[in-house]
Amino acid sequence: MSMEGAFIVLEGIDGVGKTTISKRLGAWLEGRGRKAVLTAEPTEGWLGMAVRRANREDLDPRTEALLFTADRCQHTLAIERLLAEGNVVVSDRYYGSTVAYQGAALERGMGEGAVEWLLAMNRPVVRRPDLTVLLTCDPGAAMRRVGARGDRSKFEREGYLGRVQEIYLMLAGDLGWTVVSSDGPLDEVFERVRRAVQAYV
Amino acid sequence: MSMEGAFIVLEGIDGVGKTTISKRLGAWLEGRGRKAVLTAEPTEGWLGMAVRRANREDLDPRTEALLFTADRCQHTLAIERLLAEGNVVVSDRYYGSTVAYQGAALERGMGEGAVEWLLAMNRPVVRRPDLTVLLTCDPGAAMRRVGARGDRSKFEREGYLGRVQEIYLMLAGDLGWTVVSSDGPLDEVFERVRRAVQAYV
Repeated sequence: MSMEGAFIVLEGIDGVGKTTISKRLGAWLEGRGRKAVLTAEPTEGWLGMAVRRANREDLDPRTEALLFTADRCQHTLAIERLLAEGNVVVSDRYYGSTVAYQGAALERGMGEGAVEWLLAMNRPVVRRPDLTVLLTCDPGAAMRRVGARGDRSKFEREGYLGRVQEIYLMLAGDLGWTVVSSDGPLDEVFERVRRAVQAYV
Repeated sequence: MSMEGAFIVLEGIDGVGKTTISKRLGAWLEGRGRKAVLTAEPTEGWLGMAVRRANREDLDPRTEALLFTADRCQHTLAIERLLAEGNVVVSDRYYGSTVAYQGAALERGMGEGAVEWLLAMNRPVVRRPDLTVLLTCDPGAAMRRVGARGDRSKFEREGYLGRVQEIYLMLAGDLGWTVVSSDGPLDEVFERVRRAVQAYV
């Protein structure tokens, strides 16, 4: 067991269970005597509020991606301070979310250039996580968990989230992420995540 | 003389005279019977306010660059609507400002990658201007016009603005901008800008 800082990221579509897993991970880490800090994107700071406002006002997905990444730049500086103090930082979403969500929205107009643009935008901003866990599930099941959203039909939303998850899985392959299915009892899902995390904390 | 829209950008360091030239250009265009809209970055919208707040709070130059570009994305959508209505849009600053100012701030840490990153971030966001005029002058003279800024010594500020202008000149060469010295009487400077603009309006 190392007492150095570690940076763990949870990714996946809305409703896949990231927040629940993140909390259990925090409790487990504290039980092991580690200082754990749970964080999330968008942040609770004013840049995170700007991200939410852009989303409410339905601004261009490129604008949203740039705002998410601005928020992430300051978030990353905070994460680096926490890591230097020996904390285990568990972030509910990181740059993969921007690449997957805004990538799925932008690729209709920009093609493959969308994901490339988002990755290039994020590269000088992010710190490479020690571990990224991608939680996956059926998009329809995820939607039932979080309830319907206003702006799209259920069918459109399910197709969109399916594509978001495809981009996530492509990133997981390219970047060496750990993929964990969130199907099945929560204890089992958590156990799979805990085993992946254990090597880093 | 075309009655189609035209997109003219004025670039240059603070104090070089962009705003004054922009206003004269607007008056001259109206005198020719053209609908002219003067615009500027950062904008007066909430995204422009976010840019100003980041600057006041001295956030990371990467964060600033991302916010400027988010503001620019929505600004560009507005510019495109104005152009479609046949307006001549004169913008006081556009993406060159981000590349030059944040490039000069970031290249100490990122080397040549800074300018490349900023250009790549902006590429899918911007509309290519019909004409970009870069106004140049001695950085010391520009500083005397706008007065001292708080956060840096005069010497540091002058060196920084000198480097900003060097990046501007590099962009001008690469992108085919028109470079106009703002030394000399205002009437002469305006006359040089007007001649460059005339072909497009």
